Amino acid sequence: MVFDMGLMFEKMGSSTLATSEYSSVVSMNLFVALLCGCIVLGHLLEENRWMNESITALLIGLCTGVVILLISGGTSSHLLVFSEDLFFIYLLPPIIFNAGFQVKKKQFFRNFMTIVLFGAVGTMISFTIISFAAIKIFKKMNIGELELGDYLAIGAIFSATDSVCTLQVLNQDQTPLLYSLVFGEGVVNDATSVVIFNAVQNFDLSQITTAVAFQLLGNFFYLFITSTLLGAGAGLLSAYIIKKLYFGRHSTDREVAIMILMAYLSYMLAELFSLSGILTVFFCGIVMSHYTWHNVTEKSRVTTKHAFATFSFIAELFIFLYVGMDALDIEKWSFVKDSPGTSVEVSAILLGLVLVGRAAFVFPLSFLSNLTKKAQHEKIDFRQQVLIWWAGLMRGAVSMALAYNQFTKEGHTTMPGNAIMITSTITVVLFSTMVFGLITQPLVRLLLPVPKHLSRMISSEPSSPKSFIVPLLGNGQDSIDNMPRPSSLRMLLSTPTHTVHYYWRKFDNAFMRPVFGGRGFVPFIPGSPTEQSLHQSAHHLVDEETTGN
Amino acid sequence: MVFDMGLMFEKMGSSTLATSEYSSVVSMNLFVALLCGCIVLGHLLEENRWMNESITALLIGLCTGVVILLISGGTSSHLLVFSEDLFFIYLLPPIIFNAGFQVKKKQFFRNFMTIVLFGAVGTMISFTIISFAAIKIFKKMNIGELELGDYLAIGAIFSATDSVCTLQVLNQDQTPLLYSLVFGEGVVNDATSVVIFNAVQNFDLSQITTAVAFQLLGNFFYLFITSTLLGAGAGLLSAYIIKKLYFGRHSTDREVAIMILMAYLSYMLAELFSLSGILTVFFCGIVMSHYTWHNVTEKSRVTTKHAFATFSFIAELFIFLYVGMDALDIEKWSFVKDSPGTSVEVSAILLGLVLVGRAAFVFPLSFLSNLTKKAQHEKIDFRQQVLIWWAGLMRGAVSMALAYNQFTKEGHTTMPGNAIMITSTITVVLFSTMVFGLITQPLVRLLLPVPKHLSRMISSEPSSPKSFIVPLLGNGQDSIDNMPRPSSLRMLLSTPTHTVHYYWRKFDNAFMRPVFGGRGFVPFIPGSPTEQSLHQSAHHLVDEETTGN
Repeated sequence: MVFDMGLMFEKMGSSTLATSEYSSVVSMNLFVALLCGCIVLGHLLEENRWMNESITALLIGLCTGVVILLISGGTSSHLLVFSEDLFFIYLLPPIIFNAGFQVKKKQFFRNFMTIVLFGAVGTMISFTIISFAAIKIFKKMNIGELELGDYLAIGAIFSATDSVCTLQVLNQDQTPLLYSLVFGEGVVNDATSVVIFNAVQNFDLSQITTAVAFQLLGNFFYLFITSTLLGAGAGLLSAYIIKKLYFGRHSTDREVAIMILMAYLSYMLAELFSLSGILTVFFCGIVMSHYTWHNVTEKSRVTTKHAFATFSFIAELFIFLYVGMDALDIEKWSFVKDSPGTSVEVSAILLGLVLVGRAAFVFPLSFLSNLTKKAQHEKIDFRQQVLIWWAGLMRGAVSMALAYNQFTKEGHTTMPGNAIMITSTITVVLFSTMVFGLITQPLVRLLLPVPKHLSRMISSEPSSPKSFIVPLLGNGQDSIDNMPRPSSLRMLLSTPTHTVHYYWRKFDNAFMRPVFGGRGFVPFIPGSPTEQSLHQSAHHLVDEETTGN
Repeated sequence: MVFDMGLMFEKMGSSTLATSEYSSVVSMNLFVALLCGCIVLGHLLEENRWMNESITALLIGLCTGVVILLISGGTSSHLLVFSEDLFFIYLLPPIIFNAGFQVKKKQFFRNFMTIVLFGAVGTMISFTIISFAAIKIFKKMNIGELELGDYLAIGAIFSATDSVCTLQVLNQDQTPLLYSLVFGEGVVNDATSVVIFNAVQNFDLSQITTAVAFQLLGNFFYLFITSTLLGAGAGLLSAYIIKKLYFGRHSTDREVAIMILMAYLSYMLAELFSLSGILTVFFCGIVMSHYTWHNVTEKSRVTTKHAFATFSFIAELFIFLYVGMDALDIEKWSFVKDSPGTSVEVSAILLGLVLVGRAAFVFPLSFLSNLTKKAQHEKIDFRQQVLIWWAGLMRGAVSMALAYNQFTKEGHTTMPGNAIMITSTITVVLFSTMVFGLITQPLVRLLLPVPKHLSRMISSEPSSPKSFIVPLLGNGQDSIDNMPRPSSLRMLLSTPTHTVHYYWRKFDNAFMRPVFGGRGFVPFIPGSPTEQSLHQSAHHLVDEETTGN
């Protein structure tokens, strides 16, 4: 049992103390400086309708790659090695955790069934279509030897939407339904594709029987449920620890540290048990924002809210910068030089399959989902369906990581088939992120014209100091208490999802909150900023026991 | 130019996606879980007079080491590899940056000359004494071949006080003068020992002439000044960028991200140019808390203050846990088995040298420092001198890192001399941290009996929710504005340090703050929490242009 950190850093060299290894220090400087540049440039371009921070980072990464390629005279092939471990262990967890932490929980749980339908069933449909089409088409083309496992892997790779990019192009306040559908689907989709990918690698594919298919399905549901439970468990444990131990003698740093460490622990535990860390840390974030967040001091709340968002922001930028710079790795392209036409062709075919594969489940499943909804305003209309289809077309770092895993296993892309798949993945990722990403915002504006007063508010938002306008407390949290409470009768006549939500709230108030804390169970300390918020929430939560702890 | 991250993580294996490498995932889980345990246990033991979080972490690390050693049947020699890169690149920067960010700037700059005297001259005295004594004593003992460079390295290694541990045993609010002296000295001391250590490794030691000595001295001053300027420059740049670009359209996450990245960039730049990253990031922290912190939104202030403290807290715990677990690495001890007496003897001698080496500069330099001070209350009395001497006796992760660097270069402690030095370093670090660390708090109480009302306040502090008592704004910041301003005449008659401080304030208000922002130059936005603080500070800063931005 060797501790990885020690090993990892041993390799960085230990000749002199101050400079661990000159080149790696140079790279880190470059990278941090570029990140700063991305933030400043992203800020300056904020008013721009077309650009967003991820595309800026991609472009800066590409430009830097070109510059370094020119400086090194085209020889620096191993400029940056895309590392799936860096991605899956350090960059993805904060992003997904923050997404869970900041997600509008009410919207998410209202649409929970639809999200799971899209994320799980939809991804499987997409996987099946892309895999079969790849087998049919690529076998006829002369692109080198690919086995059945490779084709199935292609299906899994190109079924993974880029939820990180979705966060950047859709706006939670502008299009809450779409955001929660597409993003929620993205998280489940990530998990599903990783599960499918692992299943494809591990299962014996020589003979696909119905039993194997059912085994896969069972495996998926097992992973989904256990991952969710692990995440929720870690979140509840952190809430319980902070409520029980830290009650009345808070230390802000300890609270924040416990939250960060528990969230990370849940992710790593999921990885340890070969569950889906993405799902786990997502649900851990949701539970933490529902219970733990309400047990900590006012300062811890502000700190966690913004610190998590900042981590996530830096990690996102890092990924896009990384993907941009990595795209120019010479070695990958050297094999494609001989047949540039084939590579373009394969990339175009894959892009087409991505479009078709997603269309093949978004529209039918939306239809199915609409059948279960009675109220007209809850149905997903055609324009929204188009947007859901479009916003999930981007392929990102998950696809890259999976592709590298599958096609660089035996040596470094020495086989032409593998080389073409790697370069095609890069092409699809870059093209879909840039082109599809650029068009998404205008498309949202075209298909969903916002009401006048709202549009004014939104357009003025970026230029106004948002943090000063929104009150210190509860921004971004679910606005459940600000809505008029429907009567129980109307609630029961409403859709079944609402009833489930209603009973969950009852259960939450009666059993969960007294044990794990949460809104309305914050200790009352005179003169603290909490006092005010307590009064506010007490006003809305008249039916809850605000006085009892 | 190879990007280090990619390489680092490549080594972790990429067989399956979900489990990068099983053993490393297990280690990470264990480590994160232990960190959580340390926090909870440290919290429960907070009322305890003797324990503190660092000693708790050390003990937990030792216990875990024993458990794993027993489980593996005594064969797991490479359980944890102490990595100086992990320490110097990832763990030390947040700790030192946070120290600079939260340090009471007034105290620090008032005692600046004394701090530099202790940190630079004192460390050199200590280095000289320990080196010469080591040459005299160890040459007579039969502990294997050690060259002149090794003896000088021993001097540098055991001159490095553990500023991290100092932070834990001394209290900034309780003993502000001592804290700023010992901690400030610790930072300069760390930098000095690293500089001496590098100088010893790089210079030709075959013939020590006066020229070489002066070269070393010149090198040190060059490093000290350039490192300080780089740190201050990075801090000012961040202040300027945030003030110019983000004015009026703040985005909290971007501000926090820029601050984190600029601070880290300053550290990495210092490493790149072979400067002292420790000094750089320390001064970057000071400048950021003086200028940048006042340019950001209210939320960013709370977030940065607590997020940086949390990073630092986690990194400190990590180091102590790490040192504790690393101490039981079998391989290091296997060579010592044959002659346990020698190892104990060497450790005892080294501990004695540490005590003598520190005493040899604290008392004479305090005497010198007192000569320059006129006011009685500014002089360092004998009790305080004893405390300064005692609080700086702990040796920590810096010593470990330097020792590993020097004595594991050629193979892994294959030479008996090297093996003994490594184990002795571990022994000295553990002993000094645990025993000296445990005694420091009682010693402070014994030598510096606090006034009744203050002692009550302090003793009740840990059990009261500190975050609620202290107002949201400005806690921990310099309380410069709350003091009555002395008249210019009295100022000029006062000690020269004060006059420098006075002119600095003039210059700061007239030139620096209008450009780089800072207290009194926050944009006025009605209804924001800043409004109140602005009135407060305006009350004290009547002679400043509070209205002009």
